[in-house]
Amino acid sequence: MRFDIVTLFPDSFASILNSGLIGKALSKQIAQVNLINPRDFTTDKHRKVDDEPYGGGVGMLMKPEPIFAAVESLPVLPRREVILMSPQGQTMNQPLLRELATNYDQLVVICGHYEGVDERVLHLVTREISLGDFILTGGEIPAMALINGVMRLLPGTVGKVESLKSESFEEGLLDYPQYTRPANFRGWKVPDVLLSGNHNEIAKWRLQQQIQRTSDRRPDLLKAWLEEKGGKDGEME
Amino acid sequence: MRFDIVTLFPDSFASILNSGLIGKALSKQIAQVNLINPRDFTTDKHRKVDDEPYGGGVGMLMKPEPIFAAVESLPVLPRREVILMSPQGQTMNQPLLRELATNYDQLVVICGHYEGVDERVLHLVTREISLGDFILTGGEIPAMALINGVMRLLPGTVGKVESLKSESFEEGLLDYPQYTRPANFRGWKVPDVLLSGNHNEIAKWRLQQQIQRTSDRRPDLLKAWLEEKGGKDGEME
Repeated sequence: MRFDIVTLFPDSFASILNSGLIGKALSKQIAQVNLINPRDFTTDKHRKVDDEPYGGGVGMLMKPEPIFAAVESLPVLPRREVILMSPQGQTMNQPLLRELATNYDQLVVICGHYEGVDERVLHLVTREISLGDFILTGGEIPAMALINGVMRLLPGTVGKVESLKSESFEEGLLDYPQYTRPANFRGWKVPDVLLSGNHNEIAKWRLQQQIQRTSDRRPDLLKAWLEEKGGKDGEME
Repeated sequence: MRFDIVTLFPDSFASILNSGLIGKALSKQIAQVNLINPRDFTTDKHRKVDDEPYGGGVGMLMKPEPIFAAVESLPVLPRREVILMSPQGQTMNQPLLRELATNYDQLVVICGHYEGVDERVLHLVTREISLGDFILTGGEIPAMALINGVMRLLPGTVGKVESLKSESFEEGLLDYPQYTRPANFRGWKVPDVLLSGNHNEIAKWRLQQQIQRTSDRRPDLLKAWLEEKGGKDGEME
């Protein structure tokens, strides 16, 4: 997988590309990340990347030309998506990350900054993605989240495939409570069932906990899970 | 505002703390960020921070003792929240960021890693926050999003207060399309109304665009906005 990140702040990616899972995936050449700065594609002597909005308003917008020039300088792999990180986009979720990890060889990710980007940049873009219903100062942290979330799904990145399967959202429910040593920490004890060695009972307890917790905290997810489960059971009849 | 970030990967924060708005806010002493590593609070010779889950399962969990020791080593300011970044938490949104920026002097942010943290860590925690319904390899990028989103709301961080006010989500709708120079870029022209100089018409066009776009892309947000608007208009009668 090739990532091309179009950003005015390429330096802000340095640490995250060198540490943890992303660092490992890059050194194993499972993926590569290319940082490209629209400022390097300006043609005026002030290297101007932003300008005032037409119609008035505060703040500055990213101009279209340097972004077009940056994206058009990139190689084009066959299965390619050009993504704008924007609060106006489709909300990022696990099925979306899985689709990106499975169906594409190249993800070009444009990070907006200032008040946003000139609307005509959308002529370059095949998909707008939002990290969530909140405002950050730029698209750089959202792009990091996208890279991390896609990269961990690429074959060879996470050690054990099962480690992916058993996680929250993969099955549509929140995770069950997990405990490790010590069995008694400051008087708070690990639930007996987890020490029982009875794998059936443990599996039953964990599913009960997932359903209870999802019901308490995210009834929207539980509803979707029950509907999907109902549909599947129906098909099997 | 004081942020204390409890993380096994403090180095991954270096770039983001030195660039853009966060870098400026730190140098202006509007906020401070303290990184603290649970590994520095281990007492065994292998400095072990993770262990296997009770009851079986793949992957490793973060042990409770080093996290407790790290958090308990911190100073305690009067208005303090201890946050665990976790997919099981409350979904981050703009009202939550505003509440954190307004009501607290100290945000302690615990970043989970590996398969998660021992459940008993919740005895330390006053709030669990999720970045969204997707899985990342750790809580570091979610913590960066939280810091960035809170910090830009602190007085003195963003140059013009109006620059905050006019943004998406602040009013519950998606943003309107924005354009800057050139007026004609590759044949794509800026809408005439924005060049008209008629501020009433521009304001009307922008609101229409916001409503249309929110209706097309995020009917859930439009519904909430209409309900709140209805409620407010009702109060005024």
